[in-house]
Amino acid sequence: MLYHVRMDVCPPHDIDPAWFDALKAAEKEKAQELQRAGKWRHLWRIAGEYANVSIFDVADHDELHALLSGLPLFPFMSIAVTPLARHPSAIG
Amino acid sequence: MLYHVRMDVCPPHDIDPAWFDALKAAEKEKAQELQRAGKWRHLWRIAGEYANVSIFDVADHDELHALLSGLPLFPFMSIAVTPLARHPSAIG
Amino acid sequence: MLYHVRMDVCPPHDIDPAWFDALKAAEKEKAQELQRAGKWRHLWRIAGEYANVSIFDVADHDELHALLSGLPLFPFMSIAVTPLARHPSAIG
Amino acid sequence: MLYHVRMDVCPPHDIDPAWFDALKAAEKEKAQELQRAGKWRHLWRIAGEYANVSIFDVADHDELHALLSGLPLFPFMSIAVTPLARHPSAIG
Amino acid sequence: MLYHVRMDVCPPHDIDPAWFDALKAAEKEKAQELQRAGKWRHLWRIAGEYANVSIFDVADHDELHALLSGLPLFPFMSIAVTPLARHPSAIG
Amino acid sequence: MLYHVRMDVCPPHDIDPAWFDALKAAEKEKAQELQRAGKWRHLWRIAGEYANVSIFDVADHDELHALLSGLPLFPFMSIAVTPLARHPSAIG
Amino acid sequence: MLYHVRMDVCPPHDIDPAWFDALKAAEKEKAQELQRAGKWRHLWRIAGEYANVSIFDVADHDELHALLSGLPLFPFMSIAVTPLARHPSAIG
Amino acid sequence: MLYHVRMDVCPPHDIDPAWFDALKAAEKEKAQELQRAGKWRHLWRIAGEYANVSIFDVADHDELHALLSGLPLFPFMSIAVTPLARHPSAIG
Amino acid sequence: MLYHVRMDVCPPHDIDPAWFDALKAAEKEKAQELQRAGKWRHLWRIAGEYANVSIFDVADHDELHALLSGLPLFPFMSIAVTPLARHPSAIG
Amino acid sequence: MLYHVRMDVCPPHDIDPAWFDALKAAEKEKAQELQRAGKWRHLWRIAGEYANVSIFDVADHDELHALLSGLPLFPFMSIAVTPLARHPSAIG
Repeated sequence: MLYHVRMDVCPPHDIDPAWFDALKAAEKEKAQELQRAGKWRHLWRIAGEYANVSIFDVADHDELHALLSGLPLFPFMSIAVTPLARHPSAIG
Repeated sequence: MLYHVRMDVCPPHDIDPAWFDALKAAEKEKAQELQRAGKWRHLWRIAGEYANVSIFDVADHDELHALLSGLPLFPFMSIAVTPLARHPSAIG
Repeated sequence: MLYHVRMDVCPPHDIDPAWFDALKAAEKEKAQELQRAGKWRHLWRIAGEYANVSIFDVADHDELHALLSGLPLFPFMSIAVTPLARHPSAIG
Repeated sequence: MLYHVRMDVCPPHDIDPAWFDALKAAEKEKAQELQRAGKWRHLWRIAGEYANVSIFDVADHDELHALLSGLPLFPFMSIAVTPLARHPSAIG
Repeated sequence: MLYHVRMDVCPPHDIDPAWFDALKAAEKEKAQELQRAGKWRHLWRIAGEYANVSIFDVADHDELHALLSGLPLFPFMSIAVTPLARHPSAIG
Repeated sequence: MLYHVRMDVCPPHDIDPAWFDALKAAEKEKAQELQRAGKWRHLWRIAGEYANVSIFDVADHDELHALLSGLPLFPFMSIAVTPLARHPSAIG
Repeated sequence: MLYHVRMDVCPPHDIDPAWFDALKAAEKEKAQELQRAGKWRHLWRIAGEYANVSIFDVADHDELHALLSGLPLFPFMSIAVTPLARHPSAIG
Repeated sequence: MLYHVRMDVCPPHDIDPAWFDALKAAEKEKAQELQRAGKWRHLWRIAGEYANVSIFDVADHDELHALLSGLPLFPFMSIAVTPLARHPSAIG
Repeated sequence: MLYHVRMDVCPPHDIDPAWFDALKAAEKEKAQELQRAGKWRHLWRIAGEYANVSIFDVADHDELHALLSGLPLFPFMSIAVTPLARHPSAIG
Repeated sequence: MLYHVRMDVCPPHDIDPAWFDALKAAEKEKAQELQRAGKWRHLWRIAGEYANVSIFDVADHDELHALLSGLPLFPFMSIAVTPLARHPSAIG
């Protein structure tokens, strides 16, 4: 099942740079693992913003929440989820 | 180049039903033609709303505007465009 | 799977009263049929507004969209869908 | 009497982790006690957000405010209350 | 139990003046009847707007909704309800 | 002359608790003194929020501003003022 | 007493032009009469919009509401009123 | 002096097509005349929307308002004006 | 040329009180100097808020920006500028 | 390809002044280098705000994001990007 997810990252200005670098590295590793597993189907950067638009393909709301709330940057992200249904004009 | 596009359809309540049906049929035909051409890469229905989230892959802003403003339902749609860049954590 | 749905009804002021009454009767019948089927788990009126808060329990996004877009008053409603996951502090 | 309550949790980034863990444990205990007492009728997680949608069933506004303002995480929550009336199409 | 209610009146521009005058007269009569009954405790005009702020004192959400949705101008009003609890610093 | 005032209290998270307790005690004393003087005609808690709705009855805008800006919690409050006129349907 | 008032004019598109011209002429006459009477102290056009910013100097909220609601264009205006107090740094 | 202007065009759905075509032709002629005169320095289409972003270079606010309010499509446009000052990092 | 300016002051809660007092004294001095020079034509307090509405009369956008950005409290203010044109119904 | 970019600068109040001065100097140098390279076509200050409106002319979304996210003040800016297409009424 597909979910449209927008994530805006807002780290506090006084965050320890080394710790934040470690978080970002862990986030990247996790994002790539989920992409390889087919759960995180698309990941795009919103031009000019520290934000992304993503498409997740997971079994249900619980799996989605588990994945998102388990991201290393979750405490510093504002997230909006939109459930996507099949469009009658979509092909393939 | 990729663009994230959200379209909300708001037909006037007193629109002639036969004309609106014709517009919707033309819209569907156009949407499928653009999908087959690889311009309209994804088309999803937002669950519960007369709206879609789409990903377009076109040469530039002018082509995007020409495609969107040429849609039969364009006069009845509110459209928001977001340019998408490559995300450093995206694979493939 | 549970979805939180808010529906605001905004009929046009010049709608034919007899037709609107027929739509409302059909809406009520459909709402009760879906409640009896266990799909529409809760239906509450927002005090003071021509709006409701509902909880749907359906298989997936496609079923939710099919149900909502099939409601007789759908053309006159503004709808917002929020996917609900299990809360770690919920009992039972 | 039923109230729809949305709670968004926004802890400050420099909160002491041990203290926050203690608050969360106390919050969970309180939430479950109120659920067992039939006051907190439903508690759902909003997928992807540190937020919940809840239904409270209490005697009046004063009891609702006493319960909500007594929650351990109250100082870190943004709360919106909506009073719910019986819907004419609701069954049972 | 007290409720804070804001009502904004937005009649359609092409409403029949005679009918609208009749609705306003009926609204006034109903408003005064509810004030005399102690249900509509306060009624103030927001300066410069076709809107009011009111305080209702009714038994529960259902009674509030019945009163508000029964007002002659209800179809032309946008209404926002806020439940009021006792303030710890209030006297008397 | 009547003014509708909404106050939302947002103390900083790292405020010294003893100092904040002192401020709240002073606020309460001031609020009750102004109520007894007939200036602060109504004071209600918004259910579920650290906020109030109030009605002030003062000579003019300058007196209102002097009273509000002199409240001990003023530096931590977001305040919105709405001037109230007599409503043509109000009785008494 | 001074009030800051913003008025946005939104005539319906199908308004009868002759009638609207008559309303605008009456509005202008009323506006100039109130300026000459010292009630409407300032009247500025917001550049690029069919809107104005005004300063009224009237006895109280009731007089302000009577003046504003008596304007010929009142049914087609959206109005926002802000009460102005003396600023401690103002001279003269 | 430079002004940033955004114009959103919202023609009523039941506008007479021939009349609207005439208005658009007149608008285009006026826009090009003002560009040639150096008053309308830039005119860009916002991709996907019936809207533009423009830069005007005129003597003062009065000239700007006269130009904008004289556009044939002015009655159907929502306009937002932002005054632009020289940026300390701008070259040339 | 006239500009409508709204300034909202939001000092950080942990600002040094002595320094902030010095800034406010310098702001007051500057505001009065600009009023005496005829640049800052009106300065009003918004009742109940740490904010003002002002009218500036300066040569152009650059002078306005220089004045505003040179105010001692500028780093702690949120400012909105609206250019004012002559209103056709204004007298004198 | 042209992009409209608005940047609002919001440095934290406790930022080290010397470091912030260094960042601003680096930002200015980078902005001028990009202007000389023809990438940053226009740069205007929004009067009264610590913000700018800019026009970028770059090859694609990726180049735009690289430029913007590489600005020294990027961590302290809120940025909104709007893609600009050719307007049918634009000349030259």
